[in-house]
Amino acid sequence: MSFADHVAELSLVDHHVHGAVKGELDRTAFEQLITESDRPVPPWLSTFDSQLGLAIRRYCAPLLGLEPHASPDDYLAARAQQDPNTLLLNAAGVSDYLVDTGYQADAVTGVDELAALSGARAHEVVRLESELEYVAAHESTVSAVPDALLRRLEERTAGAVGLKSIVAYRHGFDFDPTEPSAKEVLAALDRWYSAGADRVTDPVLLRWLLWIGARRGLPLQLHVGFGDTDLNLRTADPLLLTEWLRQVEPLGTQVALLHCYPFHREAGYLAHVFPHVYFDLGLTTMYVGARAAAVIAEGLELAPFGKLLYSSDAFGPAELHYLGAALWRRAVTSVLGGFVEQDDWSAEDAVRVATLWGRDNARRLYRLP
Amino acid sequence: MSFADHVAELSLVDHHVHGAVKGELDRTAFEQLITESDRPVPPWLSTFDSQLGLAIRRYCAPLLGLEPHASPDDYLAARAQQDPNTLLLNAAGVSDYLVDTGYQADAVTGVDELAALSGARAHEVVRLESELEYVAAHESTVSAVPDALLRRLEERTAGAVGLKSIVAYRHGFDFDPTEPSAKEVLAALDRWYSAGADRVTDPVLLRWLLWIGARRGLPLQLHVGFGDTDLNLRTADPLLLTEWLRQVEPLGTQVALLHCYPFHREAGYLAHVFPHVYFDLGLTTMYVGARAAAVIAEGLELAPFGKLLYSSDAFGPAELHYLGAALWRRAVTSVLGGFVEQDDWSAEDAVRVATLWGRDNARRLYRLP
Amino acid sequence: MSFADHVAELSLVDHHVHGAVKGELDRTAFEQLITESDRPVPPWLSTFDSQLGLAIRRYCAPLLGLEPHASPDDYLAARAQQDPNTLLLNAAGVSDYLVDTGYQADAVTGVDELAALSGARAHEVVRLESELEYVAAHESTVSAVPDALLRRLEERTAGAVGLKSIVAYRHGFDFDPTEPSAKEVLAALDRWYSAGADRVTDPVLLRWLLWIGARRGLPLQLHVGFGDTDLNLRTADPLLLTEWLRQVEPLGTQVALLHCYPFHREAGYLAHVFPHVYFDLGLTTMYVGARAAAVIAEGLELAPFGKLLYSSDAFGPAELHYLGAALWRRAVTSVLGGFVEQDDWSAEDAVRVATLWGRDNARRLYRLP
Repeated sequence: MSFADHVAELSLVDHHVHGAVKGELDRTAFEQLITESDRPVPPWLSTFDSQLGLAIRRYCAPLLGLEPHASPDDYLAARAQQDPNTLLLNAAGVSDYLVDTGYQADAVTGVDELAALSGARAHEVVRLESELEYVAAHESTVSAVPDALLRRLEERTAGAVGLKSIVAYRHGFDFDPTEPSAKEVLAALDRWYSAGADRVTDPVLLRWLLWIGARRGLPLQLHVGFGDTDLNLRTADPLLLTEWLRQVEPLGTQVALLHCYPFHREAGYLAHVFPHVYFDLGLTTMYVGARAAAVIAEGLELAPFGKLLYSSDAFGPAELHYLGAALWRRAVTSVLGGFVEQDDWSAEDAVRVATLWGRDNARRLYRLP
Repeated sequence: MSFADHVAELSLVDHHVHGAVKGELDRTAFEQLITESDRPVPPWLSTFDSQLGLAIRRYCAPLLGLEPHASPDDYLAARAQQDPNTLLLNAAGVSDYLVDTGYQADAVTGVDELAALSGARAHEVVRLESELEYVAAHESTVSAVPDALLRRLEERTAGAVGLKSIVAYRHGFDFDPTEPSAKEVLAALDRWYSAGADRVTDPVLLRWLLWIGARRGLPLQLHVGFGDTDLNLRTADPLLLTEWLRQVEPLGTQVALLHCYPFHREAGYLAHVFPHVYFDLGLTTMYVGARAAAVIAEGLELAPFGKLLYSSDAFGPAELHYLGAALWRRAVTSVLGGFVEQDDWSAEDAVRVATLWGRDNARRLYRLP
Repeated sequence: MSFADHVAELSLVDHHVHGAVKGELDRTAFEQLITESDRPVPPWLSTFDSQLGLAIRRYCAPLLGLEPHASPDDYLAARAQQDPNTLLLNAAGVSDYLVDTGYQADAVTGVDELAALSGARAHEVVRLESELEYVAAHESTVSAVPDALLRRLEERTAGAVGLKSIVAYRHGFDFDPTEPSAKEVLAALDRWYSAGADRVTDPVLLRWLLWIGARRGLPLQLHVGFGDTDLNLRTADPLLLTEWLRQVEPLGTQVALLHCYPFHREAGYLAHVFPHVYFDLGLTTMYVGARAAAVIAEGLELAPFGKLLYSSDAFGPAELHYLGAALWRRAVTSVLGGFVEQDDWSAEDAVRVATLWGRDNARRLYRLP
């Protein structure tokens, strides 16, 4: 079997993903879901005019029975007459989805529904910030929150495979790395409750969540780098996590850095020097489209091959669940295949590294069946 | 028509440029103008030994009737016997120059002169810092400065197409993003006048200029990243502008980030998430010479294609006006052509994106005829 | 002679290297020496599963009489039956090693021993921090330290060709760039002596060493970017050195930035604008293995060709001394040869730039015979 065939047939573990959107999408709604910007698309701009837009027209159109590069309107018309979720999810070649249920869960398929639609296994990843917000909504006394949170996490993670933190969005990585004391936590909870206890953005609470997450024993996923308008990308540089990573290392927690662009080389460095750090290129791969191979290759510089993970970070249109996998396969075939062609790697090593990256590292890390 | 032919024949809008130097240039003077360093070139170094130097010898020499790769001395000898400005400006294939007149205007051709020499239209871009310095030189009373500046900008922008700020040079982007109050501005003007009111470097005045610029309705160009010795490159990272971009967004101001290297991926991210942010690779393209395609490709990752602009940022030898265009064409042909060859893009999309990038985005943004 | 042959036969100056390890290495010991991580390699990970590990199996195995891509165990078995140091050092094609003797000198060959084993000339580079620690170990009075240090440096540099600072490891580049006063230095020495005067990490003492180094007249090497677990990579960004570089420039000191990844573009910018700044990609080249050409090409964007240096930064297994050179040759052949093939550079310029980079710039900078 050729290397390209091996990669094409490899069942992937998509270790960080969200649900697929249910129901039809008109052009406005679809365009808004293929950008990380939360701003209305200006009339003179189409989000189809981007690497991701061109990749949808190139790689998804044939799955809907169209020619490659079909126009956006033709594409959306064909999409409306079929069941794109089933079609695209089944074409992704994913055996296991690890589903972050903490973002707009009502707008998309849940864990079981995603499994049913795709024919894959689906496992839950629990978002720490959402759980604290849930507890706050149900607990009127500040002093009861710490215990209630631990109980809630115990319940929620009983069947889960991992935890997730979006401290990058809520504050940035420029936080005090030490574990906050019980007293500091209570004072911060007090402030937060006085202010209405809705969205957690207090750095004391956020780092308390990180430490609680690190102590639970499950792998902890962190959003890093590229994301939506809400982010201050500058403080989503994973190097800002260095001291925190040093401090949680003795706990044995495994930490997965997600997406990482344009700090993927920095993430690769952290995965190189710290045994407990993993990383992926996540939603980067599909957003950069025709540049996926170039970006993925940069992720293959310092990171040990046992630390690479695959994810799509798809949310919404099932095109993203499919393209994450399809563009990863295309890029890995090109980059690792290129290493073989330029006579640096053996074909056996290329197969082995692709398999670690796309499947086996995640299976080991998350203890999947 | 092939894609390469299309790009070769595309009339470009060079949306950020300076004048061409008049008169002969000896080797010392020429070498000093093909580097961003303001230091004397050490005797053991030649600035021809750089990507830009090799590009001049490769691509400009044939225009002067020499073989490609002519020696620097042969090149300068041939140059002295011809009219390099007319020759090189006409070969650039630029229909419109947007000229920043705020930097050493006396040393180079003015707006009209550049138009006459090149046969292109030329439009002015007004540099904010220079206008404040002009006002200070003509206004003895601090309290009169704010009104005088507004009047001056009204006059100066009557026929202009854009504004420019060099806050990156004068202070860096690590400034308070909020609009300063009238009282703060007067206090800062007071301090500045007491110190002689020459070069504006006060962060209050610089951000006041940015806010005034943002309120004028014209597109606002910002120097970002790579530049001369004067710069602290670390504080020229466009991500430091994030909060300021958020605050001016409601004004409707369009912001163009110039050059951006090595933060062009960061700039692409800002152009992705913020509807009012554009960017170019400006003087980077010619300075990296044989690497232009590689760098330009990185700029094509996250940025929507409706946000890409072309500029040379040429100042001085008309070689730079020519090479900016010539290397951009070469790189775009290679990169977008490569996307078509690797079967990711259609040829039609490549033509369309090249045309947006080289011409149509700038026409729309600056409302050019 | 083809360009590839020229590069293959070019005698290199390895301007920053350490000794080779003596005696046999079992798999655990060998694996620990082919990573920059100081942590024990977890049982589920092998450091052979990395770009460097694959490069060893690909390029060193044939030198030991094995097929390319031999398994790690076969490789280490063959290694144990030969004299790998003599074999690999002789294959490196290095005429001069500039040896940093300040790191674990007892564990590896000294300057003369490296020369004897390799048949190359070897010269010493003196590490500033080690010398201050030596002086502190021999001098009981704080007030005597400044003079004792100067005397010690005078002695130690009598036959040396350069100095080295590891302020990146001990503190980071976010230090006050000004020269500390004698009074500040004495106060810092007092604090340090009270605390036991072992490892220098006090920023006042570290920058005092930098200034003393800058005043000695010898080229000063600075560790920059990628290194071991001890580092905070974020403060090893060379742009943080900008103001210090400005302040020492009038002294005439030449500064060489080592390794630099992932800040090699930033380093190239500094080499572009400051006449006294040089840089190399050092240990990056071999650690990124099959990506060496891609990374090296990025280093060839802004840096003047008279500022590029070659080093391996090898420490320990002689595989690293060999691979530094072998992968540099392979990458330079591919990148510069590519510039020629794409018709941007002449073959003559490629040969000239490769020779400057691999040999002549270092000869001039360090005044080698």
